[in-house]
Amino acid sequence: MAKGFPSGVERSELLSNCESELFFSKLRAKVLAHNNVHPNEKLISLSIGDASEPIPQIITSVMEQFAHGLSTREGFSGYTTHHGPESLRTQIVEVLYKGLGVKPSDVFVSDGAKGCLARLMMMFGSAVTMAVPDPTYPVIPQMCNLFGQNVIRLSSKPDGGFFPDLSNAPRTDLIYVCSPNNPTGIAATREQLADLVSFARKNGSIILYDAVYAAFIADGSPKSIYEIPGATEVAIEIGSFSKLAGFTGVRLGWVVVPDSVVFANGKPVVSDYSRVTLLVAPAGASNIAQAGGSACLTQEGIEELMKIIEYYKENARILLNAFASFGLEAHGGLNSPYIWVQIPGRSSDEVCDEWLERAHVLITPGDMFGPSGEGFLRVSAFGHREIILEAVTRLKAIYPPM
Amino acid sequence: MAKGFPSGVERSELLSNCESELFFSKLRAKVLAHNNVHPNEKLISLSIGDASEPIPQIITSVMEQFAHGLSTREGFSGYTTHHGPESLRTQIVEVLYKGLGVKPSDVFVSDGAKGCLARLMMMFGSAVTMAVPDPTYPVIPQMCNLFGQNVIRLSSKPDGGFFPDLSNAPRTDLIYVCSPNNPTGIAATREQLADLVSFARKNGSIILYDAVYAAFIADGSPKSIYEIPGATEVAIEIGSFSKLAGFTGVRLGWVVVPDSVVFANGKPVVSDYSRVTLLVAPAGASNIAQAGGSACLTQEGIEELMKIIEYYKENARILLNAFASFGLEAHGGLNSPYIWVQIPGRSSDEVCDEWLERAHVLITPGDMFGPSGEGFLRVSAFGHREIILEAVTRLKAIYPPM
Repeated sequence: MAKGFPSGVERSELLSNCESELFFSKLRAKVLAHNNVHPNEKLISLSIGDASEPIPQIITSVMEQFAHGLSTREGFSGYTTHHGPESLRTQIVEVLYKGLGVKPSDVFVSDGAKGCLARLMMMFGSAVTMAVPDPTYPVIPQMCNLFGQNVIRLSSKPDGGFFPDLSNAPRTDLIYVCSPNNPTGIAATREQLADLVSFARKNGSIILYDAVYAAFIADGSPKSIYEIPGATEVAIEIGSFSKLAGFTGVRLGWVVVPDSVVFANGKPVVSDYSRVTLLVAPAGASNIAQAGGSACLTQEGIEELMKIIEYYKENARILLNAFASFGLEAHGGLNSPYIWVQIPGRSSDEVCDEWLERAHVLITPGDMFGPSGEGFLRVSAFGHREIILEAVTRLKAIYPPM
Repeated sequence: MAKGFPSGVERSELLSNCESELFFSKLRAKVLAHNNVHPNEKLISLSIGDASEPIPQIITSVMEQFAHGLSTREGFSGYTTHHGPESLRTQIVEVLYKGLGVKPSDVFVSDGAKGCLARLMMMFGSAVTMAVPDPTYPVIPQMCNLFGQNVIRLSSKPDGGFFPDLSNAPRTDLIYVCSPNNPTGIAATREQLADLVSFARKNGSIILYDAVYAAFIADGSPKSIYEIPGATEVAIEIGSFSKLAGFTGVRLGWVVVPDSVVFANGKPVVSDYSRVTLLVAPAGASNIAQAGGSACLTQEGIEELMKIIEYYKENARILLNAFASFGLEAHGGLNSPYIWVQIPGRSSDEVCDEWLERAHVLITPGDMFGPSGEGFLRVSAFGHREIILEAVTRLKAIYPPM
């Protein structure tokens, strides 16, 4: 019994569906244990998908000017709308969805992809079923649990290109797909996405397409689900400045809800999304972040950002080469900041602990992303170059030259 | 039937509880109609509670420096936590809750009060009942509808000091109270709040105390529910930099969830609030806004902010004097940016339309805040001084000197 004064308020039953710890906490426990045993060893973390490189000055200077402007009568601004400024929504469409049938009114700017996803799921409510890939970012199925939704895991195996196997998949109301995928680092091909759209249309499902790593795609794979004909009628897409522009701390994202995506009763989903957002997040994202987002989407902004994404991808190539030299099969990393390392015959947790103990390098055990992640490690290529190189050097102690 | 491709996804039943329009849309319709008829008259809006005065440079300069720092290796920072930085939480406690039994670990920093409230209600779930004052900010009961909660309206009349009448109030799980109140502009007295805490303790209810206008209190009324003994066991308090510091666009707020507030099963509410926030808003508020919030809470920051609050309160005094000279009884405005004008014998909507048509001044009809708001107008004292003075001049055409 806690020390508090007992209220008569019953705890929501849905909360008991969310008891299990998120991987953040499990990893934190590993780090604490490591640091207790090795207080003098500097841990290298390749475990979190967080931007590490500074934001280009061409973008921060616009945020500086905007912040300064807030101290003047002319530059001060208060509440923006729950929809986000039309100018920024238009830029998002022009720069990222040109010719794909997306309209500025379909776009809602927010403080990040996670908030958009939470509001979508809050809106869909507890009666829907949702399919998620296995492995997947663990917050997604946990969020389904929180909203009382039934979750079906679709196994995504190496021999299927890590894309969910739709041939045996049951119909669900919603299908969540992330591409380039977290954790596998693989971008879905045009054929896979065409199959997905066709599957959704056949089943009357709505796709929640998480494209927050789209800027990393380099091989011609679709950067948006709307590159697939017919997708604007069955897919909602989530985007973010977090990985595009290093805005993980600044906070800015968006969701595209085309007005041709409709409920069974024929009502457009976008009307309800707008209503829910107006109620729970009426003021939108920080106006300073919005000014920064607008600077990102200028031609110069995009050019500078692509240099940083190229930097992370060079990190990924260095890691991929190292894993190859260690004799480890590794996936992803070409269209993504994540590498999915195969460790046949061993458990993810065991290898994680070994790397931590012997190389003081932390990665994320694959099983934290679902049962199909067992036997894999997720390695993040975010980080300063010298850290990546040092990690490789340290891992050579475990994997000596063959 | 919409033009879209019909999915098989059923619309959540809860959404049909939220059909009614928010007052924003009703007011927007009035403005559009006005502007059609009077295209050359410049409308003065005293209808929205949005900051109008620039943010002190002592605060914006810190945000500028922080934004600039993001372009450097040393100054770059990524994800913050769902809890918010400990330094800022400590400052909030030291500056705003000193000696009141609140700990930094009780405080969660977020992008605003509305988001905190939405997560609280999401956490409490659909089985709880909630009491709200009548009149109240209309988003609150609509949010209850969205989350499927049963709402009881507690009439707050002039002869009860506009505080909810608890003598006949039924027990509810949650009791939402906003002080200084939106829309009446009245701050609850120490006695009223002591009664509220006692009522909650007796009934095993949890108070959701909305104190976003607390900085306007000048007459010794409590600025926090935690000034009342025993409140840390039954009350959750929501605060914001929006009205304290003109951050309506910058976005920063917080919620205090003491660990002594517990569910019927004895589990602390704060554990679940933390879990829900970690799932739906894991990255917290914008780091630039957080830097600004920290600057607000320095001694110099607070001094500068209080000058601006004093400016709005001088606006309120000008309006109060005008209403007195018009022979209109007006409440609030002393501890709040809102004035609640009584218009006996006429409907709120009718007088709103008259002021709009004859003076081109927009206010919010009281009935938009609930049935007990009929016969009142909410007048906001936010705005540049010359606008307030011009509004008074225009209204004299309707209320000639007696």
